[in-house]
Amino acid sequence: MSSQLLNLPTTASFQCLPITDAVRTFIRVHGERDGAVVIASRHTTTAVIVNEMEERLLLDLEQWLERMAPAAAPWKHNDLELRPNIPADEPRNAHAHLQALLLGNQAVVTVSNGELQLGRYQDVIVVELDGPRPRQVSLQWLSA
Amino acid sequence: MSSQLLNLPTTASFQCLPITDAVRTFIRVHGERDGAVVIASRHTTTAVIVNEMEERLLLDLEQWLERMAPAAAPWKHNDLELRPNIPADEPRNAHAHLQALLLGNQAVVTVSNGELQLGRYQDVIVVELDGPRPRQVSLQWLSA
Amino acid sequence: MSSQLLNLPTTASFQCLPITDAVRTFIRVHGERDGAVVIASRHTTTAVIVNEMEERLLLDLEQWLERMAPAAAPWKHNDLELRPNIPADEPRNAHAHLQALLLGNQAVVTVSNGELQLGRYQDVIVVELDGPRPRQVSLQWLSA
Repeated sequence: MSSQLLNLPTTASFQCLPITDAVRTFIRVHGERDGAVVIASRHTTTAVIVNEMEERLLLDLEQWLERMAPAAAPWKHNDLELRPNIPADEPRNAHAHLQALLLGNQAVVTVSNGELQLGRYQDVIVVELDGPRPRQVSLQWLSA
Repeated sequence: MSSQLLNLPTTASFQCLPITDAVRTFIRVHGERDGAVVIASRHTTTAVIVNEMEERLLLDLEQWLERMAPAAAPWKHNDLELRPNIPADEPRNAHAHLQALLLGNQAVVTVSNGELQLGRYQDVIVVELDGPRPRQVSLQWLSA
Repeated sequence: MSSQLLNLPTTASFQCLPITDAVRTFIRVHGERDGAVVIASRHTTTAVIVNEMEERLLLDLEQWLERMAPAAAPWKHNDLELRPNIPADEPRNAHAHLQALLLGNQAVVTVSNGELQLGRYQDVIVVELDGPRPRQVSLQWLSA
């Protein structure tokens, strides 16, 4: 198994889901000892980051992203009546696209001698920016 | 063929060029079925992103980047007379460097069973931030 | 040798350390000619970028990051008295976490025919955002 799809239902509009343990399990099951894992979101309004799961830092992150790209700003993408073929449940989520671009939608983490090469405070975190929704993240092993 | 250089002449100062089809062709020609493709810009004032090619969202992106790092701000990099060995046609483009850093200059997309693992709304997009110019993007296959 | 840990002691709160030569040496010693190198920071308050080592641009970068996420803003992560199990020397560095997220903590650079596929103005740069500190960056070869 060189790839895996993680199903991650989210439960809030903004949410940080640590998946480091799932990545470690994937590496163990895959069985190779040197290389890297790509963790890539299949969505345009989520991000994948590597940082610290500290509760108050995540509150800062949420507020900072809202300042950088406010949900209520007059984004053109949100004028649904001006866009063709829009489904009835289309969200107004330009801010979430821009926030996802700011954070990035994928991470590559290195594996050496079977161990994820993360520092003490680093976790792999999927960031929901326009939830709640069912989400999928693709894991792919790459060989050294 | 494990690598390819895409030549992408741009025609505007800001431009979003979708290259998903070129990446798919590269994968088919390369012939392996599991791994990833790195898409990396060879420039310091372009970006490579994975997001949605929705016309009005791209207008939002352009205006947002201009707000985040305005072209006309008093950037030190733009004081050409204070920098050594500057060619006559050196652009004043500090904003484009910073915008490129915000978006990132490379993407890694995963390939499983011969198929690019992108979601329904995801495209691989080269973002010109200081055009028009001839640009080059490097594609590199990585094995599972 | 498919991986290497670079030790990078930093000497200032903000600092840009070019490591392109170290990456080239790693590629030469590793000996394969086609693939990529992942350069990943093991810290939550540093970044790894690919851009230009132009002195005045790096001053712009420092000031821009300070505007995007100011050190002195009232970040919740910096209320150390409200966080459990905090060591005596815990830094107030929420801004550095957010700046690291903006820039990204890892880069993937492609290698073709033994040569790093970087453009003329591109360097691989480790960005210290909360120094000075001893820092470590992980290099990992990935095969084509």
